[in-house]
Amino acid sequence: MTGGPYYPAPPPPPGPGANEHLPEWLRGEGEAADVVLSSRVRLARNLAGVLFASKATPSDRQRSMELCRDQIASAGLAERLAWEPLAKAPPQNRALLVERHLISKQLSRGKSAAGGADDPRGVAFSIPDERLAIMVNEEDHLRIQTIRSGLALATAWADADAIDDKLEAGLEYAFSPRFGYLTACPTNVGTGLRMSAMLHLPALRLTGDIEKVKRAASDMNLAVRGFYGEGSEAVGDLYQLSNQTTFGKSEAEILSLLEAEILPRVIEYERIARRELLAKRRIPLEDHVWRARGILSNARLLTTEEAMQALSLVRLGVLTGVTPAPDPAAEVRLVHLLWLYVQPAHLQRAFGREMDQEQRRAARAALVRSRLGRA
Amino acid sequence: MTGGPYYPAPPPPPGPGANEHLPEWLRGEGEAADVVLSSRVRLARNLAGVLFASKATPSDRQRSMELCRDQIASAGLAERLAWEPLAKAPPQNRALLVERHLISKQLSRGKSAAGGADDPRGVAFSIPDERLAIMVNEEDHLRIQTIRSGLALATAWADADAIDDKLEAGLEYAFSPRFGYLTACPTNVGTGLRMSAMLHLPALRLTGDIEKVKRAASDMNLAVRGFYGEGSEAVGDLYQLSNQTTFGKSEAEILSLLEAEILPRVIEYERIARRELLAKRRIPLEDHVWRARGILSNARLLTTEEAMQALSLVRLGVLTGVTPAPDPAAEVRLVHLLWLYVQPAHLQRAFGREMDQEQRRAARAALVRSRLGRA
Repeated sequence: MTGGPYYPAPPPPPGPGANEHLPEWLRGEGEAADVVLSSRVRLARNLAGVLFASKATPSDRQRSMELCRDQIASAGLAERLAWEPLAKAPPQNRALLVERHLISKQLSRGKSAAGGADDPRGVAFSIPDERLAIMVNEEDHLRIQTIRSGLALATAWADADAIDDKLEAGLEYAFSPRFGYLTACPTNVGTGLRMSAMLHLPALRLTGDIEKVKRAASDMNLAVRGFYGEGSEAVGDLYQLSNQTTFGKSEAEILSLLEAEILPRVIEYERIARRELLAKRRIPLEDHVWRARGILSNARLLTTEEAMQALSLVRLGVLTGVTPAPDPAAEVRLVHLLWLYVQPAHLQRAFGREMDQEQRRAARAALVRSRLGRA
Repeated sequence: MTGGPYYPAPPPPPGPGANEHLPEWLRGEGEAADVVLSSRVRLARNLAGVLFASKATPSDRQRSMELCRDQIASAGLAERLAWEPLAKAPPQNRALLVERHLISKQLSRGKSAAGGADDPRGVAFSIPDERLAIMVNEEDHLRIQTIRSGLALATAWADADAIDDKLEAGLEYAFSPRFGYLTACPTNVGTGLRMSAMLHLPALRLTGDIEKVKRAASDMNLAVRGFYGEGSEAVGDLYQLSNQTTFGKSEAEILSLLEAEILPRVIEYERIARRELLAKRRIPLEDHVWRARGILSNARLLTTEEAMQALSLVRLGVLTGVTPAPDPAAEVRLVHLLWLYVQPAHLQRAFGREMDQEQRRAARAALVRSRLGRA
């Protein structure tokens, strides 16, 4: 396991020809990639015999951090694994990890009762693919996250299950024969499993049917969240659909419900909406898509939200064929890359300097123009 | 005087290289043309011995129409003069004349009590410059309008005064030694004079100071109206500033107040606002201007209002030098041309067919793109 901080990395220049390495969740490959950006599995695990986060002292936190980190390092989890200690990590580095979906905002902040920024915690993740990330000392001692491009929950689940076994080989998990895995929050007790898919649903938003999807999901005890998870807005027409229930259903049941039943229906629903827009509302669709391109290639100031939203329409335009693209897959990857690099920390890293909000808006517009402006 | 209907004319094709003949009020020449599109003088006159519009029977209307028309035809008012009869004129032709500011909406509608569309009425105007227009049987028997590009109220006034004399040589005006010229509405009694300037004030709108200008104008008994006169909105950041009072002030006093006092101050105020935007808010200014260009060169659907507003920012961009233009004057004339041709009747004439609102929005976007899109 790489010992030191892996970040600052990668340093992508803003111009064309820049390093376009995309993390797994933005790679744009796999099944149903027109609608499903990525599939994600998360397991919550805690150590037996170490106090959970809410009662832990700083020395308890230090102990759980070391136990987990050492087992992660020695268990042979991936070809290359980076360890990023977060106590004392610069805020910009932590923000970068949040934006890459490698850590949660909660882990970035740390446990303030136990000392805030000094709270012992960290994240291990596979490089350069970032398919695997293990957060240590978040709400639970361990949060294992595996990600696969496209609709691939079964694969992501197999990945997570294997990692879980390797970690358990050297750690004693808090487990109750009656309740299953014990977790900091009762909503995770049982399997400790959350499966989710990151969906791009611009057509359902344009037709207004997105509200029906949300209600149906809620009726089936599924959560619909935004681009940055719990409590975040669905900017860029990106939605995370996930199971709410971890207790009383087996892993296989949750997997089957999502991957075989719910997600295929949502995917089909979005595809139908795209076809309907093309067939019955082509000019308004073209208007939306071309205006988005017009804004992105001309604006001198862009907020993150506006940029993400306009990029969403550019993606829709490419996938519906409304905007001619010599290499549609490359254009979709460019949208994914920009979705990431319009985020504040990535933007500042790309420009190599800290910026206030106004400067970021100008830099964001310049970055987007350099990629989407007049050839 | 040309006897038949002068319109349908001119038939401008939508593509580049189209006939760019602009009427006087959009020619973009003269003093302070960066702020003042045009100066306009209007005189209200009525015939003695013929009932005014509110009491007139259809035969009275016919009589006043013929008296006025014949005198207009024989008085040698301009090198070429078109007479456009409006009773029975197709609605599209009347709309075209309204959009060209040659007739008022009221004259277009006709006097419904006297038979609506059959109401005897018409307009004479000089061709091709359209500097002079004389409406017959509007609210008053005669409405003489003279227009000059830029800040040129004195010239426009001299024009109107000369026309007035030539008409009066063959017509007996309703005149009271005590009140002056008698008019249908008491607000016009006295001189029957309205002087106005069409101003482009985008910078004052962006800085928010436009409200101060409006309040100051109101305090000085001046009216601030929109692009299409009374009751119209100030789309495209275009405002008509005019005197309210026609009684108790001489023509020379009204002229001096507007041309020597008020208008130079408003012009300077707008110029200062433009310089301040450039000096202190250059990036937001660039953002506004470039977004407007991005919308105009990409949208597939445009309303008249959105097009006019975006064109306003394009004009501001050219005049402040924010957008490089090899021939700024030509670009300003293009904005003026498009301000006219995004209007519904002009748009339909340009495309040579009648269109519903949705079709017009698409055609408007196509027309604008063909002129402002990628070279």
